[in-house]
Amino acid sequence: MTESKEKLAVVLVSGGLDSATTLAMAADQGFICHAISFDYGQRDRFELDSAAAVTKFAGVRNHRIIRLDLSASGGFGSSALTDEIDVPKDAIGETGIPVTYVPARNTIFLSIALGYAEVIGAFDIFIGVNAIDYSGYPDCRPQFIESFEATANLATAAAVEGKGRFKIHAPLIKMTKAQIIRTGLGLGVDYLLTHSCYDPDPAGISCRRCDSCRLRLAGFAEVGAADPIEYQS
Amino acid sequence: MTESKEKLAVVLVSGGLDSATTLAMAADQGFICHAISFDYGQRDRFELDSAAAVTKFAGVRNHRIIRLDLSASGGFGSSALTDEIDVPKDAIGETGIPVTYVPARNTIFLSIALGYAEVIGAFDIFIGVNAIDYSGYPDCRPQFIESFEATANLATAAAVEGKGRFKIHAPLIKMTKAQIIRTGLGLGVDYLLTHSCYDPDPAGISCRRCDSCRLRLAGFAEVGAADPIEYQS
Repeated sequence: MTESKEKLAVVLVSGGLDSATTLAMAADQGFICHAISFDYGQRDRFELDSAAAVTKFAGVRNHRIIRLDLSASGGFGSSALTDEIDVPKDAIGETGIPVTYVPARNTIFLSIALGYAEVIGAFDIFIGVNAIDYSGYPDCRPQFIESFEATANLATAAAVEGKGRFKIHAPLIKMTKAQIIRTGLGLGVDYLLTHSCYDPDPAGISCRRCDSCRLRLAGFAEVGAADPIEYQS
Repeated sequence: MTESKEKLAVVLVSGGLDSATTLAMAADQGFICHAISFDYGQRDRFELDSAAAVTKFAGVRNHRIIRLDLSASGGFGSSALTDEIDVPKDAIGETGIPVTYVPARNTIFLSIALGYAEVIGAFDIFIGVNAIDYSGYPDCRPQFIESFEATANLATAAAVEGKGRFKIHAPLIKMTKAQIIRTGLGLGVDYLLTHSCYDPDPAGISCRRCDSCRLRLAGFAEVGAADPIEYQS
């Protein structure tokens, strides 16, 4: 494990609006950022292109794509993001856990980020989860993040040997989508590079109707800014 | 997520003596076992062959090998098990965390097992960690297992929706190596199929001198049984 006097952070970057904003916030706090993204068998491959563009724009020190098959062919699946399940459209007012939930996804992603952080000598991990707009996902809630942080500090040699204490930063967790967008615009995030749609067309154009598009469009509308990405008409 | 009236368990099987015993204990408790192993870039590939043999012998319902590169080329490394670091030999009485520690390994493995368990409808996860002989690994301690279990029950839809409560079983955690071997022999485990050495020769023959070989041989000696595997002379 390398030691460093720089403030290093590992930032989970999906290519979406939230993680692009989180990355900008980490950099704004003075962290040298190492980004990681996951190629986990998601149906939509445009995310990873966006993750590459977002991290390049942000000038991260390193961007690493971790391959881990969470799709049905890898024995997982059961989510609309990884399996042959339709993404819900115009699902206004639905409650409960969405079918886009991927079992244990944030636990898996944070665990791998934790191992990576320990290897590079970082103690700060940023994740763009949000409990307001995505209250249906159990692993986007503050109590999950706090519990994972406690586990991380019991799990790792670096913490147990007293070299530092791991901190899971979830700076968006209590922000509305409009607050996130306003913050990102203030930090110079280029939202044109981001991708949010769960079900884009073959050219990658966003559907406008899935939960993720609707939240994004409502957020931009509330801020009074134009969303720079293209949508299907 | 499929429902089942069977008692399903996910068992982490490395191909070693401990996980082979853990698998036999899970089956003995009446669980229908789904085994998972990790191809994580470990230098020693004989483990995975042993994992296949052990799970076949145990008659598991399914054995899945998850690929996740935790080696230096995957951006991880920093362990003697995954990187170009020498495995210590004859290291009697050393204290502290061994160089064979893989950052956050059990957190990563348990997280993926958790996601897999949620997909197949299992709530019981077995891991063969041991705090007596491996007190140097932070993620082999009871407080880590308890903390991970708490996190798992906050992280997952199945737990939050009240379908069940995840239980991380670490039945070996307070057993000595001799107790583990005695238990396994009583349950009919074929230890010839297992592989423990951290640094075998090119034919897979165990070195006899690494921590793992020394603990294994001492355990068999204490039990008064012959270790059926071959060792370098």
